[in-house]
Amino acid sequence: MTEPDLLVGKGEDFMLRLYDYYDSGNGYKVRLLLAHLGIRYEYVETDILKGETRTPEFLALNPNGRVPLVVLEDGPLAESNAILFYFAEGTPYLPADKLGRARVLQWLFFEQYSHEPYVAVARFLLRHTAPDDPRREVLEQRQKGGYAALGVMERHLAENPFFVGDRYSIADIALYAYTHVADQGGFELSSFPCLRAWLARVERQAGYERMLLKHRGT
Amino acid sequence: MTEPDLLVGKGEDFMLRLYDYYDSGNGYKVRLLLAHLGIRYEYVETDILKGETRTPEFLALNPNGRVPLVVLEDGPLAESNAILFYFAEGTPYLPADKLGRARVLQWLFFEQYSHEPYVAVARFLLRHTAPDDPRREVLEQRQKGGYAALGVMERHLAENPFFVGDRYSIADIALYAYTHVADQGGFELSSFPCLRAWLARVERQAGYERMLLKHRGT
Repeated sequence: MTEPDLLVGKGEDFMLRLYDYYDSGNGYKVRLLLAHLGIRYEYVETDILKGETRTPEFLALNPNGRVPLVVLEDGPLAESNAILFYFAEGTPYLPADKLGRARVLQWLFFEQYSHEPYVAVARFLLRHTAPDDPRREVLEQRQKGGYAALGVMERHLAENPFFVGDRYSIADIALYAYTHVADQGGFELSSFPCLRAWLARVERQAGYERMLLKHRGT
Repeated sequence: MTEPDLLVGKGEDFMLRLYDYYDSGNGYKVRLLLAHLGIRYEYVETDILKGETRTPEFLALNPNGRVPLVVLEDGPLAESNAILFYFAEGTPYLPADKLGRARVLQWLFFEQYSHEPYVAVARFLLRHTAPDDPRREVLEQRQKGGYAALGVMERHLAENPFFVGDRYSIADIALYAYTHVADQGGFELSSFPCLRAWLARVERQAGYERMLLKHRGT
């Protein structure tokens, strides 16, 4: 784990630190919401490819050894979608009503169970492993599962502009993160017109910030 | 999808329907919380092994084709942990403070991403596939991932009686569901003393109801 090398914002009211890897869609979810909310934070680049999430220091913050992780005044909080929920509560990015919140959570769990393990894993394999790496044996199966998830999204978006309550929320942020770079996992989106229109809709939201595909500090 | 064949409770105030498969730990989470809360519901047995979650009728309720699913007065809600959150809000089973809720969600996402795909899948393979089924090729890898998740839990429980805020919550319910039947996935828990003490602690909670390992109606 390197020392903080990218200060996105640090002022008198500083308290938030984000441990993240630049190429992580899970990390980008958090960066995108914080950009929408105008919340400044200290960025701690943590290279998952070099094992920096498995050091004793990092495991003391997150025993599950994964980024993103935020350190709040009251301690660490892990899991990208839990972090989204924390910062979105009480803002326009999470519905105020109980059922609306539960429907957002439905899509957040869909994302982590039925989408990320396929779309993000296929992308990781194509970006970070060699063509003859044995891990690529599962690529086809991951792509098949990814297309199933994209199909569920397409059917929903054929009838709704966003995932919950006809407005942009953290459900959209969570699903946008890996979907908008799905082509890097070998996914072809031409037969998903409603999904592509939704991607463009997300990109028109106030405060939208694109994913860094190369770390700013390098 | 069969007609409702097990009425756990149905009175004048009936509104809730639970689509579930008796052997699903994800479904058991919902049954356990509803038992704690004393909420009655209509149980609709939906046999995942017979494809009953992939019928047009079921896909109209959940396009992702999975149980458990509840039908509320205002429509369907899917994803076991989203359902838990919905029913737990405003009860002692979910913290009232924002950070406490986020920490519960951290464990719920841990459960769906780092625990269930390993512990539950290993259990499914051993219970519902033949010894020579090619799907069993991943059994060893699933067990390895499952032990990693159980190790994360053990380390947390060495210092805490429950997962969040020193009290029983839906984080415990979600993690208990597949952990307490992990032996059915080939997991040996003798080297996890804190985890075993926690399982017993869960089973002493008021209103605790055991998982049905055989469907009541058969």
